[in-house]
Formats: sequence, structure tokens, C-alpha cells
Amino acid sequence: MTTTDPKLRSWVETANSPDCDFPIQNLPFGVFSVAGDTPRCGVAIGDRIVDLAACEAGGFLQAGGTFSRPHLNDFIALGRATWDDIRQRLTALLAEDGERNLPLVAMGDATMHLPVTVTEFTDFYASKNHAFNVGVLFRGPENALPAQWTHMPIGYNGRASSVVVSGTDIHRPMGQVKGERGPVWSPCRRLDLELELGAIVGANSAMGDRVSVAEAEQMIFGYVLLNDWSARDLQAWEYQPLGPFQAKAFGTTISPWIVTQAALEPFRCEGAARVNELLPYLQEERPGFYDMQVGWSMNGQKMAQTNYNVMYYSSAQQLAHHTESGCPMRVGDLLGSGTISGPELNQTGALLEMTQGGKNPVTVNGVPRSFIEDGDEIALFGYAEGEGYRIGFGPCTGKILPAKA
Amino acid sequence: MTTTDPKLRSWVETANSPDCDFPIQNLPFGVFSVAGDTPRCGVAIGDRIVDLAACEAGGFLQAGGTFSRPHLNDFIALGRATWDDIRQRLTALLAEDGERNLPLVAMGDATMHLPVTVTEFTDFYASKNHAFNVGVLFRGPENALPAQWTHMPIGYNGRASSVVVSGTDIHRPMGQVKGERGPVWSPCRRLDLELELGAIVGANSAMGDRVSVAEAEQMIFGYVLLNDWSARDLQAWEYQPLGPFQAKAFGTTISPWIVTQAALEPFRCEGAARVNELLPYLQEERPGFYDMQVGWSMNGQKMAQTNYNVMYYSSAQQLAHHTESGCPMRVGDLLGSGTISGPELNQTGALLEMTQGGKNPVTVNGVPRSFIEDGDEIALFGYAEGEGYRIGFGPCTGKILPAKA
Repeated sequence: MTTTDPKLRSWVETANSPDCDFPIQNLPFGVFSVAGDTPRCGVAIGDRIVDLAACEAGGFLQAGGTFSRPHLNDFIALGRATWDDIRQRLTALLAEDGERNLPLVAMGDATMHLPVTVTEFTDFYASKNHAFNVGVLFRGPENALPAQWTHMPIGYNGRASSVVVSGTDIHRPMGQVKGERGPVWSPCRRLDLELELGAIVGANSAMGDRVSVAEAEQMIFGYVLLNDWSARDLQAWEYQPLGPFQAKAFGTTISPWIVTQAALEPFRCEGAARVNELLPYLQEERPGFYDMQVGWSMNGQKMAQTNYNVMYYSSAQQLAHHTESGCPMRVGDLLGSGTISGPELNQTGALLEMTQGGKNPVTVNGVPRSFIEDGDEIALFGYAEGEGYRIGFGPCTGKILPAKA
Repeated sequence: MTTTDPKLRSWVETANSPDCDFPIQNLPFGVFSVAGDTPRCGVAIGDRIVDLAACEAGGFLQAGGTFSRPHLNDFIALGRATWDDIRQRLTALLAEDGERNLPLVAMGDATMHLPVTVTEFTDFYASKNHAFNVGVLFRGPENALPAQWTHMPIGYNGRASSVVVSGTDIHRPMGQVKGERGPVWSPCRRLDLELELGAIVGANSAMGDRVSVAEAEQMIFGYVLLNDWSARDLQAWEYQPLGPFQAKAFGTTISPWIVTQAALEPFRCEGAARVNELLPYLQEERPGFYDMQVGWSMNGQKMAQTNYNVMYYSSAQQLAHHTESGCPMRVGDLLGSGTISGPELNQTGALLEMTQGGKNPVTVNGVPRSFIEDGDEIALFGYAEGEGYRIGFGPCTGKILPAKA
């Protein structure tokens, strides 16, 4: 059975609506609880969640008890053959002629949790539009794009402990900001979002080993939406020479559902045109991007929309580069794509770019905004459109609370 | 009982030698195994290891079973009062009139493991000598010391997955190196060490909360020696604008024994003189440094020695700064001090400084060295000297193997 066949329909009727994020072709994985009970693994279908722990207890599926854990790491560690088996099995169970006694939970009754225990978080910088636009603002047009940018996926290690699930409020950070007579201690005044895709690493690599792009692709379990909240004023003061630190450490929001590579396979496409040939270890045999709409809204107003295929480096290339030196990777590592920005202002994934460093405020529900104010809510969205169905991520939202005194 | 009383002596006779790293005043914690059995927690005394798991099984100590785990994280998470209780109890058991039936293992029979599961690794940059010297080499004398350096502890997130215990061989990394016509793929040609102290975080902080310097100090369990192996040529090409990435990701070696804050308390002292007043959140009520000798050797030849008190920011200040934005910290987080370098060449903690970027090679056992060659072994050392005893870290060594083809 082809699990991505556009003709597939589910006995869960809400899954068959063409604008539903979670049709039977999607089957993203997450972790949920109901009314304060124990978090466990589930799969989204229409407006329901398949309770995978209950499915295993009921004999519908077998995954070594891993679905009862409050994270997906142990299931993911079972490997790609198991991912595929479970996907095949779920497709059969949820198809029109499937198993109508499957234990389901109403999505509206569930609380979503972080889908994985994030082992380590790495953030990249792979949209050329974004890298150039932000480079101009931080360093001027002549030094905007770093010399190595078209030769390697530039990345930095982020902070895993502050990765939170969609719906978690974030306090505006305090920090050092450059003042006229030295730094001042202040609430962040230039708070921003970054629209990204996050790849979940699904297999370990050994220390000292390097992973090819083709191998790296096989190591990726799936993708989430990712908002890398950024304090631009803290960042400007702190980031030289060792990179962003506290400016990016106060919160990173991810969507609760991990959309698998298998579900996105029909949307595979080329990314941005190459400026120069890559070194062999970064070359890919087949394109590693997806034709997928991504965007964001602020307080309910849509602000920008672009396509993931504007990116210059794929997650597989980023993962391969991450092992270039022999750095070991682990199940649960999260790789941020970097801000996804198209060439136009209404395609930018950060306010810093959209307002040109705050100089040209945008209007949100009739009021001007240069950066994010207290009480503002940012929602990311993402979906790939197939024939009569779409593969969506569901919500990835976060609201900014005032700084703690 | 004062556990740091210089007059204390142990019934383990080897602990009473004045040049032993592990007298009864030290009692550092580690994880060991013997002949391939299960790793468990221990404490070093003379040339022996107290088998803490066996101690708990035998009723000598109580720590909720945490000493049977293959890491110290669960013991550390029990909190400072428990750390102090166990230290008091071990001092009584190991004192001359103590318990001679305590289960001990000969250090020579033991294999040492990573003492903690490293949750996340952050590396700082807190020796002004080092920051200036390296800054000159990377950016010239005018831009050597970043503007914010004397106002905040600059740090970056390192990679936790490649932290290894002393004695682990490290493969020379491959990577992109700048060439005349674009980057080339090459084994690292400028492989270096960095002599550091690592602080082990022993308590969690909540997301959104900030921790004062005084609170931060109470959160630190203890210290290890730390060698932050660095690929200088990879670093020079990759590090702008987001900081070091693969150049620091192929290996970080720590000593197997965590010397506790309690053992170092008698050596508390001032650090480097302040250039300017710090913002209040970074000011400390009492000095946060230790009068402690640190240095390194190469292939058995001593290369440099200095004192940890040359540092500008203490681990407590670094930890407080790490929570500035509300970033949550966790038990098992490892904070590298930054390279410890005194003002003289024979006090530098990295070959980059010692050889002035490779221009002035040094002589090691009669042969010239600009950077580390295949087969070279680097050993760090560190100890604080009391009256008739010393608090040492034991070995922190690593050998470089050729790059993997």
C-alpha cells in the first residue's frame, strides 16, 4: 500500500476534508495527555488523536512499549524500518475499511506536550534572502553575506533546555543592551520571531564518523515548525565573536506534531539555485527540499507567506555538515533550518527583515509594529498541498508576556 | 567536623602523602567500573576508590540508590544538603579512626567513565590574556578585545555529545579550510588544545527565572579539568557570524573526578582586577575564584603553568549570566571557564597563543611544534595547595589519532 496515495480516505470523516491538516496521508506523531493523565504517544487524524499506547495495549500495534513513554525518542530509536511498519499499519487501520474500534481521543480534549526530549538543538542559517537581509542590518551591505555562506551550512549550537511546545507563553527576556555610555540592563526592546522548520534526528552517529548527505537523509525522522524567538538588541551587543547566546536562549517554540519524511515525500523538490559547486561531502544525489507553504501571523493577521523551497541547504546537508568533524549526533537532536524568507517583504520570516531593522513599521490590526510587544501572539503555519488533501503541521503559537521584574 | 581541616589524616595511607591528588580533604566524585562490570559512583582516596554503591548496599551511606547509577546526575540532583551530608559521612568513615571495612577498589584496577551525563555544554571566554591574544590573531590588535568583553562573560553553546572522559583518543577532524580559490576539504592543520576548568551545574533553574551570582554559586556541584580541543583553521573559516561550530565539536575531554566546591573552599580568592564596574546582576558579594595551579604538558614535557585566579569571570558569574534571559539550567550542565592563560608565553593554555598563531614554534622533547601532530598526547593538570596536602584533579589526557579517511 502506498501510504501517500491521494485517493486514500479515512473512516475518521473529519480527516477527509481538503483543508484538514491531518488527513490519512499525513499521520504525524506527537505526545498528548487528557485531563492531566500520563502523557503518551499519539498520531493525529482529522480532529482526533490515535492513542498509540492504548493501541499497543489493545494489540493493534507493536512498538516494544515505547508508545507509553512521555516522549517519542524511544520509538524513534527503533529505526526507520519500524517507522515504516507502523505507518503502513496505521494507514490500514485508519483507511475506510479499517478498524473502527481503534482507541481515539478528541483533539479538543487533549493537552499536547513536547513530542521529543530534545537532546541538543542546532540552528542554521540557510535562506540566502534572510542571511543577506540580516547581514546588511548587522554589518552593512558589503559584509552582508559571509564568505563561506555559499560553501557550507553555517550553524550554531542553540539551547535545548528552552525548547517548548506550541502554546507555551514566553516572558520577554531581560538582558544587556548597548547604551551610549556602556551597556544598560533592560527588557529586550527588539523582540522578534524566526519562522523555521525543525528536523528531528532519528538515528545516532558514532563519534569520529562522518555521515554522507544520503545517509543523513535516512537519519531524519520528520519535521516540526519552529519559532526561534530572538532578542535583536541583546544579540547585537553580545554576538561577536562567539555567536548568539542569551539572545536566543529564552525560548524556542515547536509544533506538537512531527510530520514524517514519508508524508512529505511526494512534495520533494529543488531548493534555491547554487551560486557555486559544493564540496563533494555536501553534494546531494537528489533534491532535498519540499514544495511546502510556510508563513506566520501576528494577533490573527497574516503577515508573511513563502515556500520552504527558497532554502539553500536542506536538513540532510545540514546534518551531514554537522558530522563533518566527527561530531556524534543522537536521536532527539533538533536542527533548525534557519529563518525561511522569500525575496519580498511579505515573504520574510522575521520582523527584523520585514521592518528593515524597525525603520519601516508594519500595520497589524490597524496599529503599527516594529517588533513584538507584550501580549502579542505569533502563530506559524505550514502545509504541503496534494491532490485533494494537504499535509499540515497544525498550530505553532506563542504569546509574549511582560519581562519578569 | 571541618572536612577541610589540614590536620585530618586517613587510614588509607596513600592519601596522606603531601603530593597525593586525593587526600581526605578532597574526596572528589567519579564513575568507575572494574573488569567490565557495571559502572557506578565512587570517591577517590589516595590510590583507592570508595565504591559508593557497595557502601550504600552495606549500610555505610544512604543516597536513595543513586550511587548505583552509571552517572552522578541523580545523586547531584538530591541537592546541596545531601552533598554536605555525604561528604561529612565519608570524612568520618575515611578518617584514621574510621571504618576500615569500607568497600574500596584499587584505582589501578578501575576504568573511569564520564562522571555525569552532560546535559548541555557551554563554553566561556574569561581569561583576558587569552581573549586579547587570540583576538589579535583572529582580528588584529585594534579589534582584539570585543567591546562587551569587560561587561559580560561571553560564551557560546558547545556540543555535549562529544564530551568524553580523560584517556579517550580523539581523531583529528576533517573540515573545510580556506584555500586560495575557495575552501578545500582537508584534515585540520592547526589542531590545538584549550586548558580550562569545567563547572558542573548541580541544580535546576526554571524557565523565565534569573539566578543571582550568590544563588548560582550554590548551584555549582564542583569542577573538572577540561580540554576544549580546537581546530583553528576550521574555526577561522566558519566562525563568522554565528560562532565556532564544527571546529569545537569533535571532542572535549574532561577529567574523571569532580572536585567539589566544598573541597576548594579554603582556596577561595580574588580574580583579575576589574576594568570597569559590572552591572549589578554580575556583581559578586565575595570573590568567586580559587588559588589553584593549572597547566598542561605535551608528550610528557611540561609546557605551561598558571593560576586559575587570572580569570576575569567566575563560574558563578557565568552561570548567573547564562540565566540572564530566563534560560533554564539543568543538573549536568557543563560550563567551560574559557582558556586559562597567564600573561607570559609559558603560562598560556593554547598553542595558538604560545606559538603566536604558529609563527614561533616551540620545542617539545627536542622537536618543533606549532600545533598538535598525530600521536601527540596532551595532559592537563590542576591542584590547590594546602598545608601539607593538595587538592588535585588527577589526569585529564587525550591523544590525537590521524584523521579518518
